[in-house]
Amino acid sequence: MTRKAVILLSGGLDSSTALAIAKSQGFECYAISFNYSQRNKIELESAKRVAESQKIKDHKILDVDLTQIGGSALTDHRIEMPRGKTDGIPITYVPARNTIFLSFALAYAEIINCLDIFIGVNAIDYSGYPDCRPEYIKAFTGMANLATKTSVQDNEITIHAPLIEMTKPEIIKAGIGLGVDYSLTISCYQPDIKARACGHCDSCRFRKKGFELAGVFDPTQYYQP
Amino acid sequence: MTRKAVILLSGGLDSSTALAIAKSQGFECYAISFNYSQRNKIELESAKRVAESQKIKDHKILDVDLTQIGGSALTDHRIEMPRGKTDGIPITYVPARNTIFLSFALAYAEIINCLDIFIGVNAIDYSGYPDCRPEYIKAFTGMANLATKTSVQDNEITIHAPLIEMTKPEIIKAGIGLGVDYSLTISCYQPDIKARACGHCDSCRFRKKGFELAGVFDPTQYYQP
Repeated sequence: MTRKAVILLSGGLDSSTALAIAKSQGFECYAISFNYSQRNKIELESAKRVAESQKIKDHKILDVDLTQIGGSALTDHRIEMPRGKTDGIPITYVPARNTIFLSFALAYAEIINCLDIFIGVNAIDYSGYPDCRPEYIKAFTGMANLATKTSVQDNEITIHAPLIEMTKPEIIKAGIGLGVDYSLTISCYQPDIKARACGHCDSCRFRKKGFELAGVFDPTQYYQP
Repeated sequence: MTRKAVILLSGGLDSSTALAIAKSQGFECYAISFNYSQRNKIELESAKRVAESQKIKDHKILDVDLTQIGGSALTDHRIEMPRGKTDGIPITYVPARNTIFLSFALAYAEIINCLDIFIGVNAIDYSGYPDCRPEYIKAFTGMANLATKTSVQDNEITIHAPLIEMTKPEIIKAGIGLGVDYSLTISCYQPDIKARACGHCDSCRFRKKGFELAGVFDPTQYYQP
């Protein structure tokens, strides 16, 4: 029987690669994306295109409005988006975002009888978000294995974070090898309405440098090249 | 400085008691409730009345629609509500519900600079839900302390589950001692539109027996007495 996997898909470079990896490992893929703020609407369009291009089993978009809580430049429109490099954990950090998203993935996985969840977190070329680190993923897995009916029935839930210790060029090369069309993905924190990237935010800089170092053509469209 | 606490408040007997306990311990209380399905609208009215009666700092109701995921008699209207006792984990179990709710509490706590979260789970007179057990709360706490900016800054987050090893009569006696008005609370899984309880579901049976064993007047209004 084909094993199912739930994949958190934002429409960015990392999660689109994580999806391709899950597929290459033979999983029947159920992607979920979150409509969590005004700012990520363009990401969701990318997520849809990526899901379609990879021909997966299902793609679900959940409305989970994090602007009700706020506290981040991504979920509170009054907070200005930083331009260029910042020190420490940047204001684009969304409190407990991966914990909230993984919790929904855990619920959804249980409903479709699935024991495998994929998340495209990366702790090398990243913004220092605490919920992208290996120790966090390990702790979430431990908690998940006590949280649900599935886990009580002696089934082990695995949270796969296949990119966690890869560099951005390694991720890009892996994705290219698996046929990921990166022109469909968007990583920018403030794309314009044509889904073009700013080229300057943390996320754009990691992505841009990744393509350069991988020696691969960067298909990203920038509005401030 | 007064310490803040975030309290998960459903409007039921347990969470209303947990709120009173947090208040009695000197915390400035920020309750949060979840509008997560059609079925729990009446609970939310109770939560509002309980929050008002206990004169707390703030009460926030978050829209988190779990019917998008379903999988429980509480979040999928096509699943019939059980009447009377059932074996195993009942169909009223909502996949990963406490994990989702605690994740939101964790995010909210971080935004208001709060390190203490209260949840009224109970592992004695309960329905066998996995996410009500002490080992689950311990694992969630461990994960929470790796998940957020707060935790990275060496601040320890505590998940308080003051009722976890209390019997229902003990909970009721503690609440009465702290002035909880249980006539404002509702525990039933299928109250009528007048907020009266069925008297037969798991939750009603634990509550009813709790009042009997505590030797305290049961103020619950039943529509099927």
